[in-house]
Amino acid sequence: EKYSIALLPGDGIGVDVVREGRKVLETISNIHGGYSFSFTEFDWSCEYYAKHGKMMPDDGLEILKNFDSIFLGAVGYPGVPDHVSLWGLLLPIRRQFEQYINLRPVKLLKGIQSPLAGKTSKDLDFIVIRENNEGEYSSIGGRMYEGTDMDMAIQNSVFTRKGVERVLRYAFNVAQKQGKRGHVTAATKSNGINHTMPFWDEYVEKISHEYPGISHDTVHIDALAAFFVSKPETMDVVVASNLFGDILTDLGAAIVGGLGIAPSANINPEKKYPSMFEPVHGSAPDIAGKGIANPLASIWCTSMMLDHLGQPESAKAIIDAMEDVLQEKEVLTPDLGGHSTTEQVGDYICEKLRAR
Amino acid sequence: EKYSIALLPGDGIGVDVVREGRKVLETISNIHGGYSFSFTEFDWSCEYYAKHGKMMPDDGLEILKNFDSIFLGAVGYPGVPDHVSLWGLLLPIRRQFEQYINLRPVKLLKGIQSPLAGKTSKDLDFIVIRENNEGEYSSIGGRMYEGTDMDMAIQNSVFTRKGVERVLRYAFNVAQKQGKRGHVTAATKSNGINHTMPFWDEYVEKISHEYPGISHDTVHIDALAAFFVSKPETMDVVVASNLFGDILTDLGAAIVGGLGIAPSANINPEKKYPSMFEPVHGSAPDIAGKGIANPLASIWCTSMMLDHLGQPESAKAIIDAMEDVLQEKEVLTPDLGGHSTTEQVGDYICEKLRAR
Ligand SMILES: CC(C)[C@H](C(=O)O)[C@@H](O)C(=O)O
Ligand SMILES: CC(C)[C@H](C(=O)O)[C@@H](O)C(=O)O
Repeated sequence: EKYSIALLPGDGIGVDVVREGRKVLETISNIHGGYSFSFTEFDWSCEYYAKHGKMMPDDGLEILKNFDSIFLGAVGYPGVPDHVSLWGLLLPIRRQFEQYINLRPVKLLKGIQSPLAGKTSKDLDFIVIRENNEGEYSSIGGRMYEGTDMDMAIQNSVFTRKGVERVLRYAFNVAQKQGKRGHVTAATKSNGINHTMPFWDEYVEKISHEYPGISHDTVHIDALAAFFVSKPETMDVVVASNLFGDILTDLGAAIVGGLGIAPSANINPEKKYPSMFEPVHGSAPDIAGKGIANPLASIWCTSMMLDHLGQPESAKAIIDAMEDVLQEKEVLTPDLGGHSTTEQVGDYICEKLRAR
Repeated sequence: EKYSIALLPGDGIGVDVVREGRKVLETISNIHGGYSFSFTEFDWSCEYYAKHGKMMPDDGLEILKNFDSIFLGAVGYPGVPDHVSLWGLLLPIRRQFEQYINLRPVKLLKGIQSPLAGKTSKDLDFIVIRENNEGEYSSIGGRMYEGTDMDMAIQNSVFTRKGVERVLRYAFNVAQKQGKRGHVTAATKSNGINHTMPFWDEYVEKISHEYPGISHDTVHIDALAAFFVSKPETMDVVVASNLFGDILTDLGAAIVGGLGIAPSANINPEKKYPSMFEPVHGSAPDIAGKGIANPLASIWCTSMMLDHLGQPESAKAIIDAMEDVLQEKEVLTPDLGGHSTTEQVGDYICEKLRAR
């Protein structure tokens, strides 16, 4: 089988880390055989925007549609406001390709030290499933009375039955198939946000009845954020709206060693459209091209991609190789206390893959 | 001077902990002299709701209006949905009395161990200022197509110039007067939420020009939540919208030892209306009346109240007494590893106050 991958390195260190991810994909497919990749690279980015006044060509989504997966580096550059760059590239892809699941493992890899006192790999191993299409990122709203004392802005959160049911079902399914103890924790804030959140809670109840073997609770987002710090070992499968999931996943990344290694997958479960894989970290323009960006988040993404494409053995091999490399502090990038370059870390991973 | 205090113990352990807070207020005023308290207790709560179909009488706010401060325990009881109990008591008080500042110290008291590895009282000492009146808790919105496939809910976030400017000015003022290094960090999410958040950012810029001596940055809420775990020592004064502040303050409570001790103040800075002081924890009905609720959050609230009323010496004495008591693990409640009752902890604090 040949998988066609669209590479969107984007801005800043996105370019540096996608290069290593690609290297890992090529290496593992050579080792395991039975499948291969074809890569097509696109330069859509803030730089592209500076030249063309848009983040991608008008038929960008048409072009991407026929790929098996999209591998995105990072988007964002000083001078281009985030809401321009993201609403011109990342967010339309998530939405048009019905990537309504954003999947982020909160897993402390062996060799990484959690900032939480006394917590080990055994305590820190759960999954956050974030709704990725609607909710608080609606883009509906606007501003009124600008330039006067009455200046104001309004933004709508939009929760639909279809949107809520599908992410909840996905979460309960994950709990059934891969959960540690078949438990779903749904983030809410129905005490303060009194229309959309009670709506969400109602569907949590409803969908839970389809999964009699799975237990669940709903926890207010404020308390849940605190639990990520105070009792992360009680988490199994966490499901959350777009914004709450965004916050929880960065927090999740922090408790398992930081943004340097956190991956994310934007999934269209029906495989009607390509899914997109991207490190959680940003474009970090200040360190771009210096060879010090940590490629492990991007490499972890390739593992998630292989899982999604139906190559679970290769997916697992990459995690194992990462854990091998993480044991040897010196061979890591400076952010993890080592003194290797981005490229060297990619090379070490490939070596480990070959050695296994 | 005689301060009139409205006591609203509310539900569950609210009753247990407000009793100890009152005891501490009486004790410290006796010791320091020059001022005293008169207390009036109201039974407005979910129990009241069960009897009267409302959380407080129709003229409840009229009654409260003339007090110097309000001391609230906790609201919430199984069977009464949160959005009913809170929108019937807590949230109208915050809003009608223009308590547009929610103030929460993130301060690791001596004797408390942070769950963050290697972080001490020196690293964990900053302030979160939360907008407390508008933003994401608008109550504007609704539901459509209920009972059909097209069922959906919408909720508006509302940001006004007046609402945003006043909380930002308050934050910059705090940074100027009490900041460790005169720095304001504003929480945003203008990359994903593209109307209200860029509006917020614009006012952060604008107000910052009124405070040339104060530095500032805006950080996306997802990254900021992660920073609370990975580099809390870099925080000084954090300012956030209603929802973001809600999340950050619970997270802040978690990194300094949990909800058992976290206080909050709902402030009307103009003192046109009474301010309200409440522990961050909920009503915990399962442990209510058992004498095991930790009263320290409530007692910390009395310190914030005294500060607001203009008795900073008394305010400080209470913090000192808390730190004294926290050194002696045995005398604490079970949640902090001790074996004392709620009442005993209150008594110990009073003893320490007298001994100083
Ligand atoms: C109970 C709830 C509405 C409230 C809030 O979110 O404001 C609480 O969490 C708080 O932080 O005081
Ligand atoms: C860049 C931003 C719009 C995005 C999000 O909030 O979805 C990012 O934080 C992420 O989590 O992928």
